[in-house]
Amino acid sequence: MMKIITDTLENQLQQVSQRTAGLTDPEIEQRVRAIIENVQKNGDDAVRDYEKQFDQVDLTQFRLDDATIDAAYENLDPDLKEALEVAKANITSFHKKEIEYGFVDAEKPGVIRGQKVIPLATVGLYVPGGTAAYPSSVLMNAVPAKLAGVNRLVMVTPPQKDGINPAVLAAAKIAGVDDVFQLGGAQAIAALAYGTQSVPRVDKILGPGNIYVATAKKMVFGQVAIDMIAGPSEIGIIADESAKPKQIAADLLSQAEHDKRARPILVTNSEQLAQAVSAEVEAQLQTLPREEIARTAVEEQGFIAVLPTIDDLFTLMNAIAPEHLEVQLPNPTDYLSQIKNAGSVFLGQYASEPLGDYVAGPNHILPTSGTARFSSPVGVYDFVKRTQFIQYTGAALAQEAQYVTKLARVEGLEGHARAIEAREEN
Amino acid sequence: MMKIITDTLENQLQQVSQRTAGLTDPEIEQRVRAIIENVQKNGDDAVRDYEKQFDQVDLTQFRLDDATIDAAYENLDPDLKEALEVAKANITSFHKKEIEYGFVDAEKPGVIRGQKVIPLATVGLYVPGGTAAYPSSVLMNAVPAKLAGVNRLVMVTPPQKDGINPAVLAAAKIAGVDDVFQLGGAQAIAALAYGTQSVPRVDKILGPGNIYVATAKKMVFGQVAIDMIAGPSEIGIIADESAKPKQIAADLLSQAEHDKRARPILVTNSEQLAQAVSAEVEAQLQTLPREEIARTAVEEQGFIAVLPTIDDLFTLMNAIAPEHLEVQLPNPTDYLSQIKNAGSVFLGQYASEPLGDYVAGPNHILPTSGTARFSSPVGVYDFVKRTQFIQYTGAALAQEAQYVTKLARVEGLEGHARAIEAREEN
Repeated sequence: MMKIITDTLENQLQQVSQRTAGLTDPEIEQRVRAIIENVQKNGDDAVRDYEKQFDQVDLTQFRLDDATIDAAYENLDPDLKEALEVAKANITSFHKKEIEYGFVDAEKPGVIRGQKVIPLATVGLYVPGGTAAYPSSVLMNAVPAKLAGVNRLVMVTPPQKDGINPAVLAAAKIAGVDDVFQLGGAQAIAALAYGTQSVPRVDKILGPGNIYVATAKKMVFGQVAIDMIAGPSEIGIIADESAKPKQIAADLLSQAEHDKRARPILVTNSEQLAQAVSAEVEAQLQTLPREEIARTAVEEQGFIAVLPTIDDLFTLMNAIAPEHLEVQLPNPTDYLSQIKNAGSVFLGQYASEPLGDYVAGPNHILPTSGTARFSSPVGVYDFVKRTQFIQYTGAALAQEAQYVTKLARVEGLEGHARAIEAREEN
Repeated sequence: MMKIITDTLENQLQQVSQRTAGLTDPEIEQRVRAIIENVQKNGDDAVRDYEKQFDQVDLTQFRLDDATIDAAYENLDPDLKEALEVAKANITSFHKKEIEYGFVDAEKPGVIRGQKVIPLATVGLYVPGGTAAYPSSVLMNAVPAKLAGVNRLVMVTPPQKDGINPAVLAAAKIAGVDDVFQLGGAQAIAALAYGTQSVPRVDKILGPGNIYVATAKKMVFGQVAIDMIAGPSEIGIIADESAKPKQIAADLLSQAEHDKRARPILVTNSEQLAQAVSAEVEAQLQTLPREEIARTAVEEQGFIAVLPTIDDLFTLMNAIAPEHLEVQLPNPTDYLSQIKNAGSVFLGQYASEPLGDYVAGPNHILPTSGTARFSSPVGVYDFVKRTQFIQYTGAALAQEAQYVTKLARVEGLEGHARAIEAREEN
């Protein structure tokens, strides 16, 4: 059963605020450090050894040949191909609006200032193996990367005994991935961060992975950019008595089935809804193929909070900062201004969370574990960097030179002041 | 003397590509881990103990009272106040153009999709103590934070025997910093990341610091957002025979004087300019107050590369990805398209780098150590996060439901498909 909490808002906020991200495990870090340093020193040879050791494969080449990828695409179930193409079109039309162009400011006489937006040249995308290899996630990373103008998008994914999941390969082709390397674990992250004889050094690494992958990403941060460290999936639903218990329960379970550590949460001002959803969750669990996973998530991580006012519901949910937030209230757009912390928001009964996972177009790679407090869905902005520029005439510099030399000398940086004065002699 | 390199482009690129960021020192990490865990557990008491131990002060309160800050502002040298106000106005007018507003997409019948840009609620700014406490850097972080709409901007800076630098406090007031805490080191980072009785938990931590501060920032990444880890200052200058050796030398020294590990670099197609600049650097060094620091940087980190073509100069410089890039060529804007990796760009002889450090308006907190490959100057975008939203009508969902259920079932997520189908019954 999903536990129902009727404690005060204050106590519930207290409970929520105690959730913090742990530091990296030092023992795992030590093992990952050895892998990274070995790959940095010995390149392909080290990577090959680790693939033998961890994935039990003896790779003669890391890069998957294009024929294998083309075949996966050609042989794809036509309905699946259509679904992937529709998803790609919607992801593209949404993410196009995220493209930035920088600016030029030429408002002061003799002064030009501006910002240029430049795509990252090379990006690495980690795709987990086995059942967690999702073709939809390949689209969600690759489409914005290509819209941003990334020149070389490299996917790495652990080698599998019976070959890489063809749906993942087809999605890679549809999305415009340039290279697929059969590599996994910390060794794949190290290879992308430093480059080897056959793996290019990338500018940024994205994508989820196990604890070794996550630790390796955190350790190479600074050598390359990385995305956030992904935690288990979460759904938070705000609903009142008008919501339909069957739909709410189904949406809670859609995230619960991902992972035993997933967090399905309902907050409501209706005790009746709370009871009805709890019963529905139990009923629906009994026929769910992934019942065991979902049940653990529901019982160990999930809860239903009952609070008196709609404002309370938003206050608690903002403190939770869920990855996915459904607003199942009448006129849900009325509440958009009250949402401060959420990865992606689903308004009204037809905006079921899985619609956003697959087809609607907004990204499904979202901040988890409360990190929506400070981070964003994957977007085009993840695949660009900015550079600034200025140009001044001599007359324009003369207008501002005194302020530069003043500040430089106050900060004890005489050389800075002299560089400006070296312009006066001309 | 600055060494002059006349090797081939290929060999020079090879040399440059070998530069990599090291992993965190495990011994320092172990010490920092203990500090973080202690602050997490014991809050203010732990912080106070570390301040006694590391900064030799016994703090009765961490937060600096507003009267001290007001007094620093009131007693400020009027010329310095004017310089800071001019700088603030220029930083504001530039960074205003970085403000983002999100979007709404309502192009398909029954479908609303959008992106909302939300300011981070609480941000922490680390300002180093002693001679590295720069009032200009306070403006460079605080102005974009406040433009973004950050509600509470908290500055931490190590306590000083004779009080915090009044110019730094005045800059904090001018820029709109909300709280100043006299705290430094890893304990200040831990307090900001987890919150204590008197220090608020923040959403993001920015600002440079020593190795303990940098290590602590990297370790709490995920619990909070952080900016890039700052390395020593760098300047790369691209110049031909038309450039003025005195100006080039002065600009190289303006960065060399920051730090013994600073990197002043000139790349030119003119061997004559190379010789003249090298001689000028030596001449100017002899009267520079920070000669010792600058000389070490020039001799150990600096170099002049001579290559035959202008294209070669840009190729090498893009591989270096300098923090600051000056283009000292005739018609410098002609080359804007060739610049791929640089934190901030200075075009032509009057755009001397220190102008950008202090007054021009673009940010001076920039990616160092080659990280301009993938990261950006500090900007308004550092102080916001994005959230997405969708709303569908029943009819619009019906159009796309089949694609969602197809993809969900291919990925083995039956619960996702059922959540969509739960909408069909209405």
